[in-house]
Amino acid sequence: MNAEIVAIGSELLTPWRQDTNSLYVTERLNQLGVAVIFKTIVGDRQKHLVEAIRNALGRADIVVIMGGLGPTEDDLTREAVAEALKIGLKRNPELIAELYTRFAARRMQITRNNEKQADTLEGATILENARGTAPGQMLDTIYGEHRKLVMLLPGPPSELKPMFDEQCMPRLRELLPQRHIATRVLKAAMIGESAADARIAPIYQQFKDVETTILAHLGDIQLNLVCSKSIQEAAQGRVDELAGRIEEELEDLIYSSQGETLEQIVLFYLELRAATLSVAESCTGGLIAERLTNISGASRSFAGGAVVYSNELKTEFAGVSPALIEQHGAVSREVAAALAEGIRERCKTTFGLGVTGIAGPGGGSEEKPVGLVYIGVSDGESTEVVEKKFTGDRNRIRQYASQQALDLVRRRLM
Amino acid sequence: MNAEIVAIGSELLTPWRQDTNSLYVTERLNQLGVAVIFKTIVGDRQKHLVEAIRNALGRADIVVIMGGLGPTEDDLTREAVAEALKIGLKRNPELIAELYTRFAARRMQITRNNEKQADTLEGATILENARGTAPGQMLDTIYGEHRKLVMLLPGPPSELKPMFDEQCMPRLRELLPQRHIATRVLKAAMIGESAADARIAPIYQQFKDVETTILAHLGDIQLNLVCSKSIQEAAQGRVDELAGRIEEELEDLIYSSQGETLEQIVLFYLELRAATLSVAESCTGGLIAERLTNISGASRSFAGGAVVYSNELKTEFAGVSPALIEQHGAVSREVAAALAEGIRERCKTTFGLGVTGIAGPGGGSEEKPVGLVYIGVSDGESTEVVEKKFTGDRNRIRQYASQQALDLVRRRLM
Repeated sequence: MNAEIVAIGSELLTPWRQDTNSLYVTERLNQLGVAVIFKTIVGDRQKHLVEAIRNALGRADIVVIMGGLGPTEDDLTREAVAEALKIGLKRNPELIAELYTRFAARRMQITRNNEKQADTLEGATILENARGTAPGQMLDTIYGEHRKLVMLLPGPPSELKPMFDEQCMPRLRELLPQRHIATRVLKAAMIGESAADARIAPIYQQFKDVETTILAHLGDIQLNLVCSKSIQEAAQGRVDELAGRIEEELEDLIYSSQGETLEQIVLFYLELRAATLSVAESCTGGLIAERLTNISGASRSFAGGAVVYSNELKTEFAGVSPALIEQHGAVSREVAAALAEGIRERCKTTFGLGVTGIAGPGGGSEEKPVGLVYIGVSDGESTEVVEKKFTGDRNRIRQYASQQALDLVRRRLM
Repeated sequence: MNAEIVAIGSELLTPWRQDTNSLYVTERLNQLGVAVIFKTIVGDRQKHLVEAIRNALGRADIVVIMGGLGPTEDDLTREAVAEALKIGLKRNPELIAELYTRFAARRMQITRNNEKQADTLEGATILENARGTAPGQMLDTIYGEHRKLVMLLPGPPSELKPMFDEQCMPRLRELLPQRHIATRVLKAAMIGESAADARIAPIYQQFKDVETTILAHLGDIQLNLVCSKSIQEAAQGRVDELAGRIEEELEDLIYSSQGETLEQIVLFYLELRAATLSVAESCTGGLIAERLTNISGASRSFAGGAVVYSNELKTEFAGVSPALIEQHGAVSREVAAALAEGIRERCKTTFGLGVTGIAGPGGGSEEKPVGLVYIGVSDGESTEVVEKKFTGDRNRIRQYASQQALDLVRRRLM
């Protein structure tokens, strides 16, 4: 079984907006063993909609149509599906009553155009929308002698996602042949995509029944393993076996075997060891603290720290002596160590982390080029400093530096 | 004139990857007065590719095909275009020679499959690729009695973007009727999309020749004004006139009239007033510092500050008295003011900013619910505190709080 996703809305054809619902729907369909073979994005013109829907019906078993169910003149999905399938469209009195009740409950005046949201395709099952006014619809129908499942879903993600999970998924599970999909997500830090692939390709190529995808993003590698079988245990066994073999190969480069983020892992190990962390950030400028505090419950292990952009603040908040900065420069192995040691003392934490570097685009020299970063971590007894030379723009250098810093703490905790 | 964009690659049909090239290409095509009417995303199967390309040729004047030009068996774009247009495909000896030279220069062994990148469509112009091995191709041809422009471009954005700008744009400018497009981008902070639209719709609706798009994202509103005319000055005059009218209506809600970010504007005004800023962040946990330091040159006006997640650090780094925290709670008007005043003194800056709040999901109470945030700003003479109740998840609350804090500083500087 395969599917096509049709995303509707002229705003999705501008340089500023992009369909993202389809990623979510694809993930869910994949869980049912359904592959997405086409995605089409089309504006609010009935002629174009009918063409897109007919194309989709002609080549896919399942057609998921998203958007264009609202009350305005531009919302033409219902009309277009009726035309494409040559079926009727009737205003459903029960749905109109519901619309009036809903508007009244919010003390809002209902306008006439809202009634078109009650238009129902002949033979369709209504999908209730608890979070918006436009209900969805689902059709189990015949097109060109083939059976087709057609879903009409609202465009806003906050309405589409629960509707798909709560109403489409159970129906699809009933209608589709039973497949069991097992997945694993492994993550590794500070290894390039091609370097990782060179090491693990000989392994995953032996697992023809597991689909392995490598995603790389700013010092982070994500390995997605997916296996589909008629028996759940068999599928799970295969992905687990492959995951184990990859973990053996990449060893401590792998920081997560269940998809957690690096900051989640760092906080998890800190808590496990009853340890706490503080940071003194120069070139990352708050990025490491921001990443950690974005995790709920971070305060149990992360005390905080300082953004020490100026030399004065390196002294004021992390006790780095002006003489040391004078002697070695603010971007140096010595200052990174002093930042880590100083912030640890000031914050009374188990570990202190210090980062200094040149994020660019200005400020580089031949001796200390843009991208040079020193990261220090201290536990009071010993201080370790790594020197890195990252390439790319300011954002990329800062992201890599934060990734390297968090990974350094993780390794210290292992 | 209109266009269809066809993005090719099975990875673009997974839950993890998304075509983003089309946003860039759309922006460029719009600059030429060309509207994108369809986007199709298709996997690496020749049958599907041919179908997608034929559909596109049947309905659009310009067909931009991205991806599938590499050396592997999965790279089928050239073959599919040849089949769709029923034209020949020939291995180009000059391109083969270039490929061999390129590989030799990098001291890499060329493999046989690389030669297919030299396959050229009958009648095509070769688009050189300085950043990769796969050249692009451009065809000016006839399909179904209509003239069509077809472009084959490499998938990696780092290759596609310069190729489109340097080689496609000049050719398209020559081939297309001359249109002049003027644009303006206005930005406003801390106003909802529907509230903004209610105020400005009566204005922009009078400018039928200017297309106005409103984008909203986490407390930030972006208004895109686009006008296309045969004379540049006329188009520019209209967008400037509309921009002026919108600025009059929204007054100081508008922080940028040329598309700058809020953090850029804050840093610009700080520098203009020869003023400096420091921050003490509790609930935003480094996000404000991170946003400011992501701008190159931030160090001229932004000294740094502290991430004071724990109460101890509020005292240690911003001198907030434990008694004050005890009396009013860490999330209070009084502590926000003390954070702003304390960090300003410690960092010796013109302004101090203090943020405390409950980002959730835990930690809320009836009296102090999740989303409650206090933001203080002090210049040493007076301290202003705003109280806000944001809704949504942890990330959203933190983003709104950082936006509100930066906007508060901006207003103080106006």
